Amino acid sequence: MAYLNENYLKLQAGYLFPEIARRVHEFCDANPEAAKRLIRCGIGDVTEPLPRAAIDAMKQAMDELGRRETFRGYGPEQGYEFLRSTIAQRDYRDRNIDIADDEIFVSDGSKCDCGFILDILGDQNKVAVPDPVYPVYVDTNVMAGHSGAAKSDGSYEGIVYLPGTADNGFVPEPPKEHVDLVYLCFPNNPTGAIASREQLSRWVDYARQHEALLLFDAAYEAYISQRDIPHSIFEIPGARECAVEFRSFSKSGGFTGVRCGFTVMPKKLLARTESGKKLSLHPLWHRRWSTKANSVSYPVQRGAEALYTSEGREQVRALVAHYMGNAKILREACVKMGMRVFGGINAPYIWVKAPDGLTSWQIFDRMLRDLNVVITPGSGFGAQGEGYFRISAFNSRENAEEVARRLGTL
Amino acid sequence: MAYLNENYLKLQAGYLFPEIARRVHEFCDANPEAAKRLIRCGIGDVTEPLPRAAIDAMKQAMDELGRRETFRGYGPEQGYEFLRSTIAQRDYRDRNIDIADDEIFVSDGSKCDCGFILDILGDQNKVAVPDPVYPVYVDTNVMAGHSGAAKSDGSYEGIVYLPGTADNGFVPEPPKEHVDLVYLCFPNNPTGAIASREQLSRWVDYARQHEALLLFDAAYEAYISQRDIPHSIFEIPGARECAVEFRSFSKSGGFTGVRCGFTVMPKKLLARTESGKKLSLHPLWHRRWSTKANSVSYPVQRGAEALYTSEGREQVRALVAHYMGNAKILREACVKMGMRVFGGINAPYIWVKAPDGLTSWQIFDRMLRDLNVVITPGSGFGAQGEGYFRISAFNSRENAEEVARRLGTL
Repeated sequence: MAYLNENYLKLQAGYLFPEIARRVHEFCDANPEAAKRLIRCGIGDVTEPLPRAAIDAMKQAMDELGRRETFRGYGPEQGYEFLRSTIAQRDYRDRNIDIADDEIFVSDGSKCDCGFILDILGDQNKVAVPDPVYPVYVDTNVMAGHSGAAKSDGSYEGIVYLPGTADNGFVPEPPKEHVDLVYLCFPNNPTGAIASREQLSRWVDYARQHEALLLFDAAYEAYISQRDIPHSIFEIPGARECAVEFRSFSKSGGFTGVRCGFTVMPKKLLARTESGKKLSLHPLWHRRWSTKANSVSYPVQRGAEALYTSEGREQVRALVAHYMGNAKILREACVKMGMRVFGGINAPYIWVKAPDGLTSWQIFDRMLRDLNVVITPGSGFGAQGEGYFRISAFNSRENAEEVARRLGTL
Repeated sequence: MAYLNENYLKLQAGYLFPEIARRVHEFCDANPEAAKRLIRCGIGDVTEPLPRAAIDAMKQAMDELGRRETFRGYGPEQGYEFLRSTIAQRDYRDRNIDIADDEIFVSDGSKCDCGFILDILGDQNKVAVPDPVYPVYVDTNVMAGHSGAAKSDGSYEGIVYLPGTADNGFVPEPPKEHVDLVYLCFPNNPTGAIASREQLSRWVDYARQHEALLLFDAAYEAYISQRDIPHSIFEIPGARECAVEFRSFSKSGGFTGVRCGFTVMPKKLLARTESGKKLSLHPLWHRRWSTKANSVSYPVQRGAEALYTSEGREQVRALVAHYMGNAKILREACVKMGMRVFGGINAPYIWVKAPDGLTSWQIFDRMLRDLNVVITPGSGFGAQGEGYFRISAFNSRENAEEVARRLGTL
């Protein structure tokens, strides 16, 4: 009989968001009246209409596919040149970051990329993740056999957890020990923390000293409002020799349902064989895409390109401003209630210490029952998230105001 | 320093199609006049406009995303219910095949699925592939470490090759030895061969006897013209206990650039742990999608759904009829030249023995140089493909007729 991948059996419970969906579903079935006033601030999913520039570009692309002269079949597996060069120019070279067009790999989202990157990396790597953390980083490593068994607190043997706490502002320092791969995400999901230039420089120093690889998730960079906060790990000198960056149009252009993101894989980035030979990762990543993908839907790539037009940029700015307006309202409501609040200034997430010493799932259940508001339990992001919850600012203004009002009754 | 996945270093040369692209590019640069009359019958990529039903549905979906009331963000990771149920009903239950909605997993193409399926399978599996074969089956196994080194003929140690030859009509019989995973593709790429009910039954018998898993690629089922040829492995009794099926809208609806396909993963399908415990693969596959994907672009899923409307079905039939008209013309031109010809009756591929004892790349270069026609060298599909070439019928009628004319001058 065919063998299955037993690493999957180590995974704990459901993936966080399906588990939330299950509890909400159960509550709504049992309380149809309360269900009607339910407001979701759980999963970080956008709610506002897609930018007009993207819609127009995608519809035009559809029309192209409807005519023989302009029809396109398979595109280049790594993404169309028009999109790769636009990204490299506008997100990097215009900001004095030297990234070549063919260092951009277009994908259907950074969640996927965070898993796919393990395809080209060895099983011997020692992996470090922040705690709390986006569960995908951990789970994909567990699935790939890079961990031992789960422990009672939900963490896994063999993975190095870097505690993010109120004391360090949820920005972990590099560890004392040696690791090979480090996941970093700034602005952070779930805590909303940002890393300063100095903090990121310490990570780049660590990576260069230990020849470690930084996997930098910048999916929320569009939400940075403060000056002088790096938008890309490649703003830090030396990062092109030690980092990969993941970005997404999900939260900037509202593409969570449209699906597009990209990875920046610098050609200078080396990794080693067991015997110590140093090779560039870029050709492996290129080959991975050639063999295992056929790129992203053509109309979607045109939609992503349109986000870089002046019209598109203006519409993205308006979307971000809308969600950050919500973040301000929600943040202030929590502060007013005397809660300890983080994030929500350079990120669409507000990270809150649960009142009355409640656990994360206790405050989840209480807010679902008493306020009919869905939040995300902090413990779903790791042991250090216990006792916290995350409020997402992705909502209509009306809903954000209503949630703020209800928070006042908690 | 981070370790890389050394299995990638075992891969031979470039992936077939990029290598073809490279040679064509080189030829065109050197021969700008000839380049103008170049006709591509190489990569199996559709050329005709997308069905109107799909375009209209996708544009309507775009409009939905442009209004707050109908906006959708993240969809269910395994695909929208509307598409999963349409597929299960129309492709399976309407044909008396008992497949549940949640046994359908929507993806962005069957090429991807063929690679992704290895995520949930163990490294211990003994893998068998036909030869010639779609290179993705082999390469993804090499990347995952399921093979030894490459041999001089391009095959890999540790993989069991099942020769498809003119003698067995390119439908390999089950092997004498035990294997755990078998890739099958009918109608076949590259040979255009089809498998009869009896032939598939022998494979299902083998799989049940050896508790092997059949990975059945039915991406070309829409091209079956003869009655009584199974369109799905699940038409064979017992297959739901031993097979996974991959399908695609690429060649039926012309979706090579739009990207959508699906996997059928029956819940009855079991695989084993090292210790002999038997577990259903379905929850692992479900978990794989939850953790590593965010489903397919919403407008694309609406486009795929539209292919099942009466209008959509009629347009798909017309597309298939168009390409099969080309196949007939190309097939007859080869026959007329006295070549030994296979396929092209239930598949959009014609598989031809190269004349004059030429090797596959020799006939490739000769047709490129003398006819300015791009075909696919059979040896790119495996050692048994040496001495053959594949002509794709995906073209305009005008081009197909012109290629037929030029073939007469070879």
